[in-house]
Amino acid sequence: MVDLRSDTVTKPTAAMRDAMFQADVGDDVYGEDPTVNRLEEETARLLGKEASLFVPSGTMANQIALLAHTERGDEVFIHRDNHIYFYEGGGAAMWSQATFTQLAGEEGLMDPEELNDRIRPTNIHHPRPRLLALENTHNRAGGAALSRERIAPIIQVARAHGLAVHLDGARIANAAVALGVSIAVLAADMDSVSMCLSKGLGAPVGSVLAGPRGYIERARVYRKWLGGGMRQAGILAAAGLYALEHHINRLQDDHRRAKRLADALREQGFSVSLPSVPTNMVMVDLEQPADLAIQFLARQDILVGAMGPKRLRLVTHLDVSDADIDRTIAGFVQLKG
Amino acid sequence: MVDLRSDTVTKPTAAMRDAMFQADVGDDVYGEDPTVNRLEEETARLLGKEASLFVPSGTMANQIALLAHTERGDEVFIHRDNHIYFYEGGGAAMWSQATFTQLAGEEGLMDPEELNDRIRPTNIHHPRPRLLALENTHNRAGGAALSRERIAPIIQVARAHGLAVHLDGARIANAAVALGVSIAVLAADMDSVSMCLSKGLGAPVGSVLAGPRGYIERARVYRKWLGGGMRQAGILAAAGLYALEHHINRLQDDHRRAKRLADALREQGFSVSLPSVPTNMVMVDLEQPADLAIQFLARQDILVGAMGPKRLRLVTHLDVSDADIDRTIAGFVQLKG
Amino acid sequence: MVDLRSDTVTKPTAAMRDAMFQADVGDDVYGEDPTVNRLEEETARLLGKEASLFVPSGTMANQIALLAHTERGDEVFIHRDNHIYFYEGGGAAMWSQATFTQLAGEEGLMDPEELNDRIRPTNIHHPRPRLLALENTHNRAGGAALSRERIAPIIQVARAHGLAVHLDGARIANAAVALGVSIAVLAADMDSVSMCLSKGLGAPVGSVLAGPRGYIERARVYRKWLGGGMRQAGILAAAGLYALEHHINRLQDDHRRAKRLADALREQGFSVSLPSVPTNMVMVDLEQPADLAIQFLARQDILVGAMGPKRLRLVTHLDVSDADIDRTIAGFVQLKG
Amino acid sequence: MVDLRSDTVTKPTAAMRDAMFQADVGDDVYGEDPTVNRLEEETARLLGKEASLFVPSGTMANQIALLAHTERGDEVFIHRDNHIYFYEGGGAAMWSQATFTQLAGEEGLMDPEELNDRIRPTNIHHPRPRLLALENTHNRAGGAALSRERIAPIIQVARAHGLAVHLDGARIANAAVALGVSIAVLAADMDSVSMCLSKGLGAPVGSVLAGPRGYIERARVYRKWLGGGMRQAGILAAAGLYALEHHINRLQDDHRRAKRLADALREQGFSVSLPSVPTNMVMVDLEQPADLAIQFLARQDILVGAMGPKRLRLVTHLDVSDADIDRTIAGFVQLKG
Repeated sequence: MVDLRSDTVTKPTAAMRDAMFQADVGDDVYGEDPTVNRLEEETARLLGKEASLFVPSGTMANQIALLAHTERGDEVFIHRDNHIYFYEGGGAAMWSQATFTQLAGEEGLMDPEELNDRIRPTNIHHPRPRLLALENTHNRAGGAALSRERIAPIIQVARAHGLAVHLDGARIANAAVALGVSIAVLAADMDSVSMCLSKGLGAPVGSVLAGPRGYIERARVYRKWLGGGMRQAGILAAAGLYALEHHINRLQDDHRRAKRLADALREQGFSVSLPSVPTNMVMVDLEQPADLAIQFLARQDILVGAMGPKRLRLVTHLDVSDADIDRTIAGFVQLKG
Repeated sequence: MVDLRSDTVTKPTAAMRDAMFQADVGDDVYGEDPTVNRLEEETARLLGKEASLFVPSGTMANQIALLAHTERGDEVFIHRDNHIYFYEGGGAAMWSQATFTQLAGEEGLMDPEELNDRIRPTNIHHPRPRLLALENTHNRAGGAALSRERIAPIIQVARAHGLAVHLDGARIANAAVALGVSIAVLAADMDSVSMCLSKGLGAPVGSVLAGPRGYIERARVYRKWLGGGMRQAGILAAAGLYALEHHINRLQDDHRRAKRLADALREQGFSVSLPSVPTNMVMVDLEQPADLAIQFLARQDILVGAMGPKRLRLVTHLDVSDADIDRTIAGFVQLKG
Repeated sequence: MVDLRSDTVTKPTAAMRDAMFQADVGDDVYGEDPTVNRLEEETARLLGKEASLFVPSGTMANQIALLAHTERGDEVFIHRDNHIYFYEGGGAAMWSQATFTQLAGEEGLMDPEELNDRIRPTNIHHPRPRLLALENTHNRAGGAALSRERIAPIIQVARAHGLAVHLDGARIANAAVALGVSIAVLAADMDSVSMCLSKGLGAPVGSVLAGPRGYIERARVYRKWLGGGMRQAGILAAAGLYALEHHINRLQDDHRRAKRLADALREQGFSVSLPSVPTNMVMVDLEQPADLAIQFLARQDILVGAMGPKRLRLVTHLDVSDADIDRTIAGFVQLKG
Repeated sequence: MVDLRSDTVTKPTAAMRDAMFQADVGDDVYGEDPTVNRLEEETARLLGKEASLFVPSGTMANQIALLAHTERGDEVFIHRDNHIYFYEGGGAAMWSQATFTQLAGEEGLMDPEELNDRIRPTNIHHPRPRLLALENTHNRAGGAALSRERIAPIIQVARAHGLAVHLDGARIANAAVALGVSIAVLAADMDSVSMCLSKGLGAPVGSVLAGPRGYIERARVYRKWLGGGMRQAGILAAAGLYALEHHINRLQDDHRRAKRLADALREQGFSVSLPSVPTNMVMVDLEQPADLAIQFLARQDILVGAMGPKRLRLVTHLDVSDADIDRTIAGFVQLKG
């Protein structure tokens, strides 16, 4: 079975399992799990922030980020394809009750001028502008990797209006590897960043949220109230630490395989985006319904996901080999035929 | 003083005051105010719905409408210039906690295809699509009056996806007069409609929300919980009943004056929209900041409002005479000079 | 018909109607209604606070008070018979989302020691203690009038823990008249106070919320977002101003009549509380179901309300005369028989 | 170090670690983790319910339970010492926005008559009564184990009013072992039950929520929206499955040790409750501040928790041996001295 539906499907390697087996643990709700503490220090350092918090999922990292940035009646500016708006159900609206103003733009980047125009003057008729939410790499934009320089103008507008900035960095490691910069550089202009250990990095469970110390204190309270406080979470954190050490550089293999896959599909006449295939995702626009293609490929033991009525998403990861790419290409050849 | 800031500034006429003075009243929280009951019956009939509810403001009518249509986790599709999103502060996000998906489109009308594309499939990652929210006349679109036929395609898409439809009909009477149809025709395809008595109709306070009986029962509960249940509200309802009888047809005078004003300003070289000036609003796009123009005109006792950094809004109403229009034109001539 | 169900049922007097008829009005959402402004100044003065806000109902005054005092995750300490908890539906929980900790105690007063015990230490497992909510007169406690001295100990505990204090003073004028002190004295130890113009004071619609200027600014925003912003609300404010001038001292007549009614019922063998009948309410505990008694009395054109399965509430007010009291006593004699 | 602060501090045994190491995993957000699926089936069977859901914590299990039982405006009846009200921060109020009506009563059991009295009639002034929330064993009541028969009367009142019933069964296994009945018997009268794998059962992380299939479907949506959806959660579920097989019967050792500890403390003159020491908890009421005793004992490497200003809580568990009990007794002898 080749599973290209998502990089969330990776299974822990033997070495990662061993790290979990060996993990020194304690009760993290009391702040006494040494492995969680180490992971939080390590990820804070990696992201260049004062503090970090381990949570069960990227969705929780984002939801807590919103809660800790906003008060009742605040407004969040977000791309209409951002994960928080698009894939986190009714959560953002229900938990943080912010007004979410959706913007559009290429590769997950809003137009700075549009942002400027959409920020309303401060008066009794409007919510209070508070937060800009970004995503990097940008999933629905085809895994776009956004450089610090490309993001700068939109952040400049946000700052000019006193907005805080949160980055959904679920795949920030992919972005850093693709752009050849450190993760900290991509996080530098952000107030808070979430990062997933369980996607490209291959850990079974967990994400972190990093930011200033006082902010992470507030986030820790919301984590408890949401039910995200786990006990001997060091078992999971050990996998995360292992992933940080061993699975970041290898992301370039995933990117290389995605590129090869995209090139081959393009050669077969498929419409593929992003043209540059910057990270580990390939979007394929079909003429037929995505569902039919998904079923056809599944019968050949190739699993892919839908990203729209006629759009497929293929994601490379730790458990996708070069041979798997070959088999996938072959599957698409048959699909074409 | 000529006050063109909004049609909310009208003062009750002597005859309307007399109607309030004479009003038969009771405790409306107990359902015993005969004048409120009469107003609710009358507006239900006018809007072609089973039942109607009297509330203190258009904002409350809309907020209750959302609450009564949605449950936790639902999604509302709305134009980014709709009053509910644009002018009701953080309320919609705070009270109904729905996910508000904003769409764009000319004259307050979304593109049916865009709506179709933005409605996501039903799964655990998405909120539940529930409601389409419209506005007619459309304030930020320059008082656009949308005919039943023009609205039909967007409603068709909504219905195909099982969405309910709410109309912010704060100025539905203006729309009906402008289009030469009955108010009920414009409400016919809607599940619920709010209508203001205190804008063009000239009553001092109050709006209604109309819809199916069971829906209005739910709305009545939310009205109480929001603190919108008033006691001897018949005083206000009497003004509303007077307005329904005497102030609907006269809206054509407001429209005629708005048109005359717009034509004169255009002649002076001002950029005016909507080109057709369908109802009682004139938007003027300036080259200078709106604030400066507002101050200049105010010094000549002409009050106008801002609709953007360089956009003015001028609204005609019960308390704006032909002479006031002349004075306003003269003021703009000086502004130009 | 003698209507003792509530003092909310009073109808405006001819003089009050005249005051409304004459009222100078403007658009209060713009802050331009001179009569509303006068009422807000007058009630701020009367309550001894910096500022005041006119709202459509006592429920809205209380809900806004909670919103303006709390942030997400705060805790409110409240008597289990307080109006906010008991009679405002699911509103408090839905709008302010505070944790409401209910306490018990005689005449609507919690035991200071119990309050002290229920305030939990500050840590991640608990909400943040923020507000003490009181009510005076206390409706469900039989119209108890609580002196500043009696309330002092509970306030002292609240202050020791840094809690703010809100008073539901819907009937604070009754309390002041009963205790022979000024309204300001009873409001002095409170951060915020709501007061109703539409209950014993006899205005048709409206309440105020008073407090520090910055607090009332926040309250004004929430009023708009809840839909409580009304336009030419001076019509209603005029009735309120009239009531403040003419209907406060006369509350002693209501109290005298309630006392006479209670004494007569007690003489007939009815169990009546509060024993002292401090204000305008008489609670009658029956051996039969309240509903049957209500129906029996209604057939004699005497309307009373239920305050429990076997408890009636009788409220005197502006529209209850000495003759009405006689008729009511006669009705109860027959009920007994 | 003897750690009696909570049974949450247990560390996974070597055998449990091995089970985790060996666990067969998949992506549980896709429903494809075989170990999670097995745990959910197993716990559904154990609790006698149609379906079960694995979540990161007991708090999340409870919060989801509330969300899935209630709609906006509903009322939950709960003991004032129930974990959901007492230890889950501002969460319940923030996420489910229900009105929480707190009741009192011995051993975490409310008085059925008080419940009956507190349920208000259905009308516009009240929230809608929806849910009764119980806890068994009852933590703050000293680990009280409540038999099905003892709970029956309160459930009967709940059912008579159409309330659903949720049990916080974080320690339901302790209750079943103490009472000598099956877990399913204690869950039988409940609509939904949460159970923790990470407390007495000794798993590092995780709880389950069990109930009817449709209910668990709704719960699964809320889990995702709260960020409780984990990927290869089978690592954790494997520990849970191990715990179910090996760590239930052994709870009697914890109970026996708690009893021995309590008896010895009582002999030393300490006030201990519950008198019968039914499960794994001992509450010690001191004359001195709990904080001082905690510090004194900590210097002897004995960790205990505070349950009130002068109350300690001692909890036995997997990692507390007979020798640890001896050391603890000795520590208390010194404390006394």
